[in-house]
Amino acid sequence: MTAWVDDASVALVADLYELTMAAAYLEGGLDETPAVFEVSVRSLPPERNFLVAAGIEDSLSSLESFRFDPGSIDYLASLGRFDEAFLDVLAGFRFGGEVRAVREGTVLFAQEPLLQVSGGLLESQIAETLLLTTAGFQTLIASKAARVRIAAGERSVADFGARRAHGPDAALKAARAAFAGGANATSLVLAGRTYGIPVTGTMAHSYVLGHSSEFDAFVAYGRAFPRDAVFLIDTFDTVEGARVAARAAGALAEEGIEVQAVRLDSGDLGDLARRVRDVLDDAGFPGIRILASGGLDEHSISALRESPIDGFGVGTQLTTSGDAPALEIVYKLVEQRGAPRMKTSTGKLTLPGRKQVYRRTREGRLAGDTIALAGETGLAGVPLLETAMEDGRTVRPPELLGTIRDRALAGIASLPDELRRLDRRGTPPVRRSERLDALVVELGGPSQDDPGPPIGGEPLD
Amino acid sequence: MTAWVDDASVALVADLYELTMAAAYLEGGLDETPAVFEVSVRSLPPERNFLVAAGIEDSLSSLESFRFDPGSIDYLASLGRFDEAFLDVLAGFRFGGEVRAVREGTVLFAQEPLLQVSGGLLESQIAETLLLTTAGFQTLIASKAARVRIAAGERSVADFGARRAHGPDAALKAARAAFAGGANATSLVLAGRTYGIPVTGTMAHSYVLGHSSEFDAFVAYGRAFPRDAVFLIDTFDTVEGARVAARAAGALAEEGIEVQAVRLDSGDLGDLARRVRDVLDDAGFPGIRILASGGLDEHSISALRESPIDGFGVGTQLTTSGDAPALEIVYKLVEQRGAPRMKTSTGKLTLPGRKQVYRRTREGRLAGDTIALAGETGLAGVPLLETAMEDGRTVRPPELLGTIRDRALAGIASLPDELRRLDRRGTPPVRRSERLDALVVELGGPSQDDPGPPIGGEPLD
Repeated sequence: MTAWVDDASVALVADLYELTMAAAYLEGGLDETPAVFEVSVRSLPPERNFLVAAGIEDSLSSLESFRFDPGSIDYLASLGRFDEAFLDVLAGFRFGGEVRAVREGTVLFAQEPLLQVSGGLLESQIAETLLLTTAGFQTLIASKAARVRIAAGERSVADFGARRAHGPDAALKAARAAFAGGANATSLVLAGRTYGIPVTGTMAHSYVLGHSSEFDAFVAYGRAFPRDAVFLIDTFDTVEGARVAARAAGALAEEGIEVQAVRLDSGDLGDLARRVRDVLDDAGFPGIRILASGGLDEHSISALRESPIDGFGVGTQLTTSGDAPALEIVYKLVEQRGAPRMKTSTGKLTLPGRKQVYRRTREGRLAGDTIALAGETGLAGVPLLETAMEDGRTVRPPELLGTIRDRALAGIASLPDELRRLDRRGTPPVRRSERLDALVVELGGPSQDDPGPPIGGEPLD
Repeated sequence: MTAWVDDASVALVADLYELTMAAAYLEGGLDETPAVFEVSVRSLPPERNFLVAAGIEDSLSSLESFRFDPGSIDYLASLGRFDEAFLDVLAGFRFGGEVRAVREGTVLFAQEPLLQVSGGLLESQIAETLLLTTAGFQTLIASKAARVRIAAGERSVADFGARRAHGPDAALKAARAAFAGGANATSLVLAGRTYGIPVTGTMAHSYVLGHSSEFDAFVAYGRAFPRDAVFLIDTFDTVEGARVAARAAGALAEEGIEVQAVRLDSGDLGDLARRVRDVLDDAGFPGIRILASGGLDEHSISALRESPIDGFGVGTQLTTSGDAPALEIVYKLVEQRGAPRMKTSTGKLTLPGRKQVYRRTREGRLAGDTIALAGETGLAGVPLLETAMEDGRTVRPPELLGTIRDRALAGIASLPDELRRLDRRGTPPVRRSERLDALVVELGGPSQDDPGPPIGGEPLD
């Protein structure tokens, strides 16, 4: 039997240290000490200029349904590390704290909190790993999809990457995040069923090889899908495949069937697309679109800007975020008993205190963010963190995925040109508030005006 | 509610084209045409010299339980693409074919099949995406873990990467694959419960920050876990943290508590480990071990070979396979109606025909593999592909994870030194049989003796 993660087992999606710390907090009487933790990305991968927040709704719902089922308690007891008093606490555990979160689809930068969890020390640190892997992965993929969206411009982008994703569940969540970040469709049927994302797809090389000829394969497919016929034309020779597709389109036209598109999946896509366009146009099929796939990423799509390709299927690079398969996402204690906390070990600064981000825009363009301490007044801009859970219950209804995607597209469009570049780092317009910067200095960290690496300037470690 | 993949929904972990092709096969009367598909990795990522097969058991069990539940059928009907006859076939669908597979933990090379699925065209192509994402991801991580194992030598390796994995399910499967590939333990509690993998962990920086001093944090932790006390010493200054740890160990010793280890998580780990070792030795604690974590991969671990570090926690790079987050794993039609098939489009050669791999060893060392056509006789070596499913049912019991891991460790040990190098490509001792090579040529492909890129020599696209 394949083991699957589900709501009953999700509380054990924890690193052991979350439980050993919880036990130590309980034993030391610190379990209910008020604490605030924040999720943020310490610095961005090379080339990346911004993030698109995703995985927030899943994080919230996992936290709301977070329970240790009897099997989990039995397993923990079997480790021989935990005493009965602690196991009893876990058996009755419910998260009862508060969460503030940005909306999914929000464009963010390094050091800006995505989630802020407040509660007793025990309850607020116990879901660390679950929140990081959930919000971190979806944010990673939504952010990658946004880059592909920028590269593709007005042309369509379909997520084709399920087969190379990190397992079935990663494929499902990647499809959601890719759509949220700007993709138009997915090939993953389960993502269509689960999230209502438009599904798309055509045929594999094996389908062509499974017929006695390319022509027979195309005609049979056109008859089976008279409204959605897309032919894969590179099984043998792409340009010859285009000629075969044109002949099949001619034969099918006599049956009243209109072929929609052809797909190229290998070779020099730009050159082949031009030659295929000529073949189709010469054969009287200017309306047959050209789709391309095969090892594409934002850079290769950008390089195909002048080609007659109408849409892209993006696989491996999209669902694994090939250039940077992880974000340096962290879960950090920022306040305890009302006092700000900050770790100062080498090169890993995180900003202390319970924070809020104020975003200023001017004529629809992002003008700047201020990372401030929560409760500061007189700062310009719209606060990005909103109350999402109170007393352990979500207090805002989940949003439609289309709403999230619209927010992401608007956010991407609002970015300064420098940050929409795909090939190098820009400087995000992010400043600490004076009070926050003074607090960092007071706790032994560097002021933002000190020489040294800028915010988001350190490499991913 | 978070949506999770489970046995009921796994049949929709499909790219839409698998279903459109299936419908077209049914409509064209080709659905029961005998066909054979194989899963293999077309070429290896840069630096990689071998694979460790994993995810085979999960692939087999998913195929055995592969069903379209009523909700899935309703969803597919709602797409308006599929007729009732096809939906009825799906509603009653069971995989009834045969699968041959290598054992998990087997060391493999590019072009060597991991799985071979035989049956009617419809049933044998419908699980393509599910098999690829399942076997591909676990093989990816087991192969990465094997490199970390080589780098660490006799020192312990713990998977710390759940938080950066591609979601909770990827974290779970990565922990399994990492252990199969040679890790000693995992921090992921659910992997301990699900697979029996030893779990390990200590404390976060937040735990230290949550106490009034480092000393108090260490003493409280030691009292809570008298047999498993490991102190994280880099929250403020690592060497000073070692002095504090030594003082705490002294105080705890008076209570009969023996501190096990300290952990470094940042900075120049080699230099810090030497200085920490001196501090602990001078304080009379030569038995306290030094563990290291923080951005480690096989290269940085290899560079720490001379340091006094006793064990490594490996996170992001292990569970995301940071240098190569995907394998070029493919599912290819190799035979239909008994006739071999091969796609010839540019640069994407796959070997035709139903195959078998014969492995020769000499004095426990790998001497060479022959990729042959199934049924060839007179070839030296042990066949790697074994019958795993007949008539849609698994015919071999699942193996213990420890057995799989032992096989992987033995396989890694058997590799020629050239292939155990971490920093460059060697040439795997793999040849096609004469008959297979002749068949490739007959179908229009290049002989293995032609000049051109060697097997496994093309970059991941």
